[in-house]
Amino acid sequence: MNRSRTEKGEKSRKRLLEAAAEEFASNGYDRTRVSDIVKRAGLTQAAFYLYFPSKEAVYGELRDAFFTQLSELADAGKQVTPLPKEMTVPKIRENLLGLFQFFRARPRLTQVFLAAAQEGERLHQQMAKLVAENLRTNQNAGHVRPELSPEVAAEAMVAVLYRLTERFLLTEVMTAEELADHATELLARGIVAP
Amino acid sequence: MNRSRTEKGEKSRKRLLEAAAEEFASNGYDRTRVSDIVKRAGLTQAAFYLYFPSKEAVYGELRDAFFTQLSELADAGKQVTPLPKEMTVPKIRENLLGLFQFFRARPRLTQVFLAAAQEGERLHQQMAKLVAENLRTNQNAGHVRPELSPEVAAEAMVAVLYRLTERFLLTEVMTAEELADHATELLARGIVAP
Repeated sequence: MNRSRTEKGEKSRKRLLEAAAEEFASNGYDRTRVSDIVKRAGLTQAAFYLYFPSKEAVYGELRDAFFTQLSELADAGKQVTPLPKEMTVPKIRENLLGLFQFFRARPRLTQVFLAAAQEGERLHQQMAKLVAENLRTNQNAGHVRPELSPEVAAEAMVAVLYRLTERFLLTEVMTAEELADHATELLARGIVAP
Repeated sequence: MNRSRTEKGEKSRKRLLEAAAEEFASNGYDRTRVSDIVKRAGLTQAAFYLYFPSKEAVYGELRDAFFTQLSELADAGKQVTPLPKEMTVPKIRENLLGLFQFFRARPRLTQVFLAAAQEGERLHQQMAKLVAENLRTNQNAGHVRPELSPEVAAEAMVAVLYRLTERFLLTEVMTAEELADHATELLARGIVAP
């Protein structure tokens, strides 16, 4: 296990993670074999097991990293809440843009985790929970319309984010900026208190 | 085939369709056998083949009826377009309510066709196309904000409709009326021209 701490080891590890993401996205988790991953990475089966105990482990690591980074992004709005005017139209656009850019920078992983029914569902609920908390805090601060249900609005916002990502962003029909503009156009007036 | 035209025949046919919907929703299309459907309907295998050539045929009939009715509903807003003020907040609410009530009245079929990845996708695109056309017509008439992209807004609206149905309506957490109110609250201000 010493090798994994060296620079070369870190590179091989990263190559295996990237190759695994490609394989999962192309062929699905079930149909991906460790032999496909190492072939794509240009490494040996032995090298794979130096860094990961199993296919499940590499998938788990990709998923956990994706979830953690995404949660931090979805949660970003929360930290500036004490400031006045936090929930403004430009701020909503900025947050949406950050999320779309995140997905755009990881098209393969986004495909794996947003499309996979079960993983997608888990991720959707986690995101919706964070967004709902954020909306509730801002509602209490007077920035969000008092009549809005944070739970329903959060579910709706995450659904919009997912669908636009799948339909226009990953297919490269629109840029993250364009989608952030469109989504803000549609949603901001219903969220921000007048 | 004469029997299928009699009143008794129509009743058996309907029972088979209902039983099939239950089985597809409970066990998925692949794991449903004709023998499960006839058992639930309290009929014989021979009776089934009197009305349907195969499992595929009964699924196809359920799907086509669901699609057709849903398309008519999604298209309903279009017919009154020439009238002024068609795209108003109460009108948006009325259309949303009609859709939520449609799903609520058919929880099993909604589960089958909204959850099934491929069917769901096909349905989503059909719905989004109708909604986009409707938005475009109303945009030309000056009822919808000129800066809104009909395609993006339509995809987003259908995504919201789907998610709220799955998350709150089919789980009986909220009524169709409550969801129509919440969805209108969130979306209407971004759609309707001031």
